[in-house]
Amino acid sequence: MESLSDVFEHTLQDIYYAEQALTKALPKAQKAASHPELKDALASHLNETKSHVTTLEKVFATLGQDASGEKCPAIDGLIEETQGVIEDASDEALDAALIGCCQAIEHYEISRYGSLREWAKVLGNTEAHDLLGTILDQEKAANNKLTHLAVSAVNQTAGA
Amino acid sequence: MESLSDVFEHTLQDIYYAEQALTKALPKAQKAASHPELKDALASHLNETKSHVTTLEKVFATLGQDASGEKCPAIDGLIEETQGVIEDASDEALDAALIGCCQAIEHYEISRYGSLREWAKVLGNTEAHDLLGTILDQEKAANNKLTHLAVSAVNQTAGA
Repeated sequence: MESLSDVFEHTLQDIYYAEQALTKALPKAQKAASHPELKDALASHLNETKSHVTTLEKVFATLGQDASGEKCPAIDGLIEETQGVIEDASDEALDAALIGCCQAIEHYEISRYGSLREWAKVLGNTEAHDLLGTILDQEKAANNKLTHLAVSAVNQTAGA
Repeated sequence: MESLSDVFEHTLQDIYYAEQALTKALPKAQKAASHPELKDALASHLNETKSHVTTLEKVFATLGQDASGEKCPAIDGLIEETQGVIEDASDEALDAALIGCCQAIEHYEISRYGSLREWAKVLGNTEAHDLLGTILDQEKAANNKLTHLAVSAVNQTAGA
């Protein structure tokens, strides 16, 4: 990577891999969750995640490229941590731990889309900037929903 | 993990491992960086990271426990991604990519400390809540500093 364009493309491939990996990981998290609102939030975010894959394909198109993923050890590690929690925690403790892991994943995505959006701006790619900004807003909203669910219900139940 | 206390302890061990891993990873990132302000920011955050290890030992003490780490695949993946960037990117592109990776790490920590602080509150552990809140504020400030550096200087230089 010798230019900002190279960094942008590399990170785009990383996050494309990450979103695809999440379309497989989220159903397992949703199945493991107990609280109905948490199940709903994860189902809703799975749909958003699938739409992010499609939106990223549009971003690749602004570069005149077909979409392609590159193995991303960060998301692999975050998903492995989530899988460990699903295996090791039970009942209400699982819901609280699961929200924590999902928020770590959301924060990973927020950081990557934040960087990508700003890089697109500097590169003069307005269309990519706007598409990435739309995904970023959805990731932030998904994270805020999980925070609300944790502090308004799930943590208290797990701590009772 | 059958209770919120179990989840709290497990996540505390994860982040203790993560902070220790970062005391070894950050000097490599600092050495690889070119921009003087980025080098300074990473040096300053290395000092904070060392202080977080000590603060976490105080949190373990509130539980009547010695500090212990548990292998955390998420931080291992995030550090592996950073190391990959150090190896594959050059000059100004490296600085921009490096800030992105460091912000992904900051966001991971922000999410974990956010969860831990709220769990400490529900568990009635005021001392742990306050200690974790102090670290959380420093992670947020470190992330904001990196955002400022990226958008005010490093991205433009890399994109020129």
